[in-house]
Amino acid sequence: MKVVITGGTGMLGRRLALRILEKPELTALDGTPREVDKLVLFDAFEPVEPPPDDPRVELVTGDICDAATVDALIDGETDSVFHFAAVVSGGAEADFDLGYAVNLDGGRNVLEAARRTGRCPRIVFTSSLAVYGGERSIDDSTALTPRTSYGTQKAIGELLVNDYTRKGFVDGRTLRLPTIVVRPGKPNAAASGFASSILREPLQGDVVENPVDPETRMLILSPKRAVQAFIDVHNADGESLGPNRSVMMNGISPTIGEMLEALRAYAGDEVADRVTAKPDELIQTIVDGWPWFADGARARALEMEPDASVEEIIETFVDEELGGTIAK
Amino acid sequence: MKVVITGGTGMLGRRLALRILEKPELTALDGTPREVDKLVLFDAFEPVEPPPDDPRVELVTGDICDAATVDALIDGETDSVFHFAAVVSGGAEADFDLGYAVNLDGGRNVLEAARRTGRCPRIVFTSSLAVYGGERSIDDSTALTPRTSYGTQKAIGELLVNDYTRKGFVDGRTLRLPTIVVRPGKPNAAASGFASSILREPLQGDVVENPVDPETRMLILSPKRAVQAFIDVHNADGESLGPNRSVMMNGISPTIGEMLEALRAYAGDEVADRVTAKPDELIQTIVDGWPWFADGARARALEMEPDASVEEIIETFVDEELGGTIAK
Repeated sequence: MKVVITGGTGMLGRRLALRILEKPELTALDGTPREVDKLVLFDAFEPVEPPPDDPRVELVTGDICDAATVDALIDGETDSVFHFAAVVSGGAEADFDLGYAVNLDGGRNVLEAARRTGRCPRIVFTSSLAVYGGERSIDDSTALTPRTSYGTQKAIGELLVNDYTRKGFVDGRTLRLPTIVVRPGKPNAAASGFASSILREPLQGDVVENPVDPETRMLILSPKRAVQAFIDVHNADGESLGPNRSVMMNGISPTIGEMLEALRAYAGDEVADRVTAKPDELIQTIVDGWPWFADGARARALEMEPDASVEEIIETFVDEELGGTIAK
Repeated sequence: MKVVITGGTGMLGRRLALRILEKPELTALDGTPREVDKLVLFDAFEPVEPPPDDPRVELVTGDICDAATVDALIDGETDSVFHFAAVVSGGAEADFDLGYAVNLDGGRNVLEAARRTGRCPRIVFTSSLAVYGGERSIDDSTALTPRTSYGTQKAIGELLVNDYTRKGFVDGRTLRLPTIVVRPGKPNAAASGFASSILREPLQGDVVENPVDPETRMLILSPKRAVQAFIDVHNADGESLGPNRSVMMNGISPTIGEMLEALRAYAGDEVADRVTAKPDELIQTIVDGWPWFADGARARALEMEPDASVEEIIETFVDEELGGTIAK
């Protein structure tokens, strides 16, 4: 079974790849479990973290905006595609044309390449809570009225996945993710990046500025739970998902203040005091457009579980990324 | 003031043009009323009906899919664009690639050309109830979960109009139309075409087959009311519409049986007996995905009025298109 991950060397793509290599059984096109024996990691950049050293892995560097490149990537052997490649929210807001080129046209290239294989591959499209339009509480039937270019591009991608699926060109499904916390590594251009930074940087020994009001809530999910959710939504029976293939993933909804209190309780005052307040109006405005509470019945029905607490999220990060050691 | 109508020789585009020529005052970019002194009618085809004979009118034939053509069309003098050019629902379902090329990429060409003018022209985008996904009743907050390629393309267009507007590239607004009844002229490839044919053909002396169950309801609006709604939504204050620029137009919701009864009451047995039942599963399936009842508070707030009754719709058609004479 051949699997392609676009954005395969990025944070989520790489972790999904490691998870698949560790437990390589996925649901194949005929609906039965099959072993992944070829895993193609596609990305625009040379990988920042070393790619998994495994004979099943092939690394391909290229431009998702180039249709011929994507056609060659998603070939007649491809069973499944996880489509992560994207310009993040802050990037798509800063460069309108790049955002549309990568997030809209790049996504169309993936769907078209999959369609051309003629074998209706499984496509897992990555969406985001940025598709919503300022509602405090959301559920599976909430209208998508995004207020950023990124959210618009993701909402369009969801519509395209549904239409290509309805036509029998792909067997698509979309996972709509909460904000991923704690993202490891360096800060990226996502407007939501601070929600990771305010935990990650102090735990790694660095000071950090919190740009938003402590009363602001964030819907968050750990990378570990997100990776499991991608596996679950990939393996779900497409027919049972119905004509709307989007699954909204649940998260937990602490305030930024509660996240910082959990950091203090877990890591102590010295670590927690590395966070200082520095309000940023642009980030606050973007984040204020995002929902606080998710009630995703579809995700629950698929037994896709969010984290239990902020403490669990912090502990997962310290264990997986810091080798269990907090920088004092 | 210069106005461009894409699809300007089509049924609605042409009627809107005639209405503007008759009462040429529209709200200009500065928010004040201004006289339209140049009206460009753009279309892919040589006009079927003769274009309005008026010195203010310029006819341009070209391909909406060609970016350079659209750039030349929407120039630095353009104040407003009404974007009607589209492949209709049945056509977009039959030719997937053509539907996306015209309805999605053509729409993007219009938005990009308008953006390049640098003067934030008013864009009125035409959408349809095909953006909905099988709900019986809809209102302004209903999620868009289309079940046809046409509906998908229109939902995407609405998202793009909102995003280009938010960025300040255009001053966009979308009018989401019920099924237009009675469409004059020849049947077209729209899956909804029968709703006009079952009234138009008998009134013109021809026999016609009704492809759907008489208990099926249709949300309908006359061309006359639709044209007025386009003027109203064009002139509406953009700021007051908020970040979601889509306005769902209300209609009336007779059953097909009630429409045929109204025809019988208005035109007599001889005319009404020209309709015979011939169920068509494909059309029934598509139509079953469309809503029956619309409760559009935004349209009401803008005082955009639907027709009073099927009788009024029939009478409007007979007066405007048949010179007041029914074919006995």
